[in-house]
Amino acid sequence: MADPRVLAAQALPLIGHLDPEFLKLMDRTREMLRQVFRTANPFTLPISGTGSAGMEAAFVNFVKPGDRVVVGVDGAFGGRMCEVAYKYGAQVERVVKPWGQVFSPDDFKPALAQGGVKLLAVVHAETSTGAWQSMEGLGALAHDAGALLLMDCVTSLAGVPVEVDRWGVDIAYSGTQKCLSAPPGLSPFTLSPRAIEALKARAAVGPLFPGQSIPPSNPNSIQSWYLDMTQLEKYWGADRVYHHTAPISAIYGLHEALALVLEEGLDARFARHAANAARLWAGLKTLGCTPWAAEGHRLPQLNAVTVPAGVDEVKARKALLDDHGIEVGGGLGELKGKIWRVGLMGFSSSPANVARFLEAFTKVLGAQIKVPDASVPLEAALFSSDATASPAAA
Amino acid sequence: MADPRVLAAQALPLIGHLDPEFLKLMDRTREMLRQVFRTANPFTLPISGTGSAGMEAAFVNFVKPGDRVVVGVDGAFGGRMCEVAYKYGAQVERVVKPWGQVFSPDDFKPALAQGGVKLLAVVHAETSTGAWQSMEGLGALAHDAGALLLMDCVTSLAGVPVEVDRWGVDIAYSGTQKCLSAPPGLSPFTLSPRAIEALKARAAVGPLFPGQSIPPSNPNSIQSWYLDMTQLEKYWGADRVYHHTAPISAIYGLHEALALVLEEGLDARFARHAANAARLWAGLKTLGCTPWAAEGHRLPQLNAVTVPAGVDEVKARKALLDDHGIEVGGGLGELKGKIWRVGLMGFSSSPANVARFLEAFTKVLGAQIKVPDASVPLEAALFSSDATASPAAA
Repeated sequence: MADPRVLAAQALPLIGHLDPEFLKLMDRTREMLRQVFRTANPFTLPISGTGSAGMEAAFVNFVKPGDRVVVGVDGAFGGRMCEVAYKYGAQVERVVKPWGQVFSPDDFKPALAQGGVKLLAVVHAETSTGAWQSMEGLGALAHDAGALLLMDCVTSLAGVPVEVDRWGVDIAYSGTQKCLSAPPGLSPFTLSPRAIEALKARAAVGPLFPGQSIPPSNPNSIQSWYLDMTQLEKYWGADRVYHHTAPISAIYGLHEALALVLEEGLDARFARHAANAARLWAGLKTLGCTPWAAEGHRLPQLNAVTVPAGVDEVKARKALLDDHGIEVGGGLGELKGKIWRVGLMGFSSSPANVARFLEAFTKVLGAQIKVPDASVPLEAALFSSDATASPAAA
Repeated sequence: MADPRVLAAQALPLIGHLDPEFLKLMDRTREMLRQVFRTANPFTLPISGTGSAGMEAAFVNFVKPGDRVVVGVDGAFGGRMCEVAYKYGAQVERVVKPWGQVFSPDDFKPALAQGGVKLLAVVHAETSTGAWQSMEGLGALAHDAGALLLMDCVTSLAGVPVEVDRWGVDIAYSGTQKCLSAPPGLSPFTLSPRAIEALKARAAVGPLFPGQSIPPSNPNSIQSWYLDMTQLEKYWGADRVYHHTAPISAIYGLHEALALVLEEGLDARFARHAANAARLWAGLKTLGCTPWAAEGHRLPQLNAVTVPAGVDEVKARKALLDDHGIEVGGGLGELKGKIWRVGLMGFSSSPANVARFLEAFTKVLGAQIKVPDASVPLEAALFSSDATASPAAA
């Protein structure tokens, strides 16, 4: 859910996308995004598309046919990065682990050692498995190999620490509908100076394909017009060169969502996410439910719950939605039927929501298998004082 | 501006993008889009990006390297279509006219006669010039040459008649922020059965680039992941296969905007646009202002006004915005400094807005050159009974 202030902002009257007042709002939005990404990158902006558009922008601006990219695949979104990279002609080197596990820097060394790698791409918070990937050490690893470090932080941004500059991340994209708690539709995006250098070197004038006849007025070798970051930089930079019409209402919403994040404070927000996840798991344990993601690498905002033996997960999910108005995710890909994914993100991460979910979930599970009395998991949740442990939170 | 009902819809609470209630809302949105496009095309949906994303989708799904495309260029957006086509390796054949003029079917015959043309691409309502292109005869012309007909109707949809089926249009895209009067951010998009056939023939499995190593799980030769219409069809079709997360709030807004259009009735809406443009021009004529677009081809929703001799157009535009809160467009490209573009679109097309603009404009022009008393153009506007004439309105 989004905070009512975010929804109210989206109902404000429209102004023109090149109106001086809108440009000021956009500048403030970009400055707040930098704070949330913990970066000084001048090139930080919301892309006019969802997180998937951000993923595409991350690859299309940097990959040309034949480039090697190394992708960590331990869930659905790592797999999707491979598909997107492939679309632009990359030679994709997949480093694979079972879904729900995470990588250590050593896992990437053999693929990087082959040389000539353009990008090392990693998912920070794997939405399909609830696994929390540590980014420590990956920046130096990529840079030593002459590669750029690309991070998917769709589900992590504003829920757990994201440290773009400290980690040496060169390309990062997120979404608005996860821990930022704004509606879906925009993709916060940032590029390091190192990435900008690579982008400029790449965007040299010339035909994209052999024998092309008419050079356009803004030719470069980036195989997308809408997501061409060299053009977006001119639109949102000092030049204000018209590129496309920015989605005004969505940016009103993001602006308000970012203000809410910074009013709460990033560290307080991370602590809130951790505390509510601890409450959730204290209750779930009394129901006999166990987490799917590897120990010490569990996201507090996206809790992957193993489906207990004897339970029909689709039926349970439908009952939660139909009878209790609560939507949880099912498993994707190889985890289909094996897990539920319980989101406690941003505005929705609250003790009240944990309690409401546990009450409903106890009833739904109880219709299928024997579980404790509903008050037991609720009590466990309310009096829990654990914190989720993760090396990435250190 | 957007109708307050549209803005209010954007403040409604979020539901999941695969929630059964949202899927129903999406189905109703698609059905209303069909009515507004005047098409029976099953493949009709809003793309999760602005009109520029729609333009890119129109090309990337149909053009492969080396394909010939014929583009009519009589303004900025015809030129932009060439740039986008070029990004995907097209051999671009430009058919050029001075900005503000329009094409007859005969203008395209020589280029089409060369054979092997994949697309004939035309802008229906050229936002940069205010020119209204007739689409009559272009469908048969394209199909006889074995080409698909692609139409940019960003500024025309719901302001003047758009007849996708009757005109034989195969690929059409629009924007939400023009005559639909919703905020920018989505691109209404439709594909004819003939276009779908071409899409399916094209999307054969196989590596996009020679020597690629790992085939992804959904490979095809369309050089975009986010705008791959074969994937979007599965997301919005009976399968509901997750592709990206739809921008919920923006679709709430579009749903309400389409309901408003159909409550008014398309024909009544077109008549309203025509009547208010006639009011505007009756007033502008008394100020000595003349239209830029060719006679008989002037869009009622986008009125290109020639800057009179001796007037500083930037200064006038700034005074309108700063002193009167009215934003008008300046000229783009080769029309920079030569025209203003006065929008009377959707919710903003009203006698009150015409009167408010004329009062302000009389003062602003009067600060630079000698003009009639402010009451003269206002009276001319209020008592005008002309209708804008255009062959395309017949």
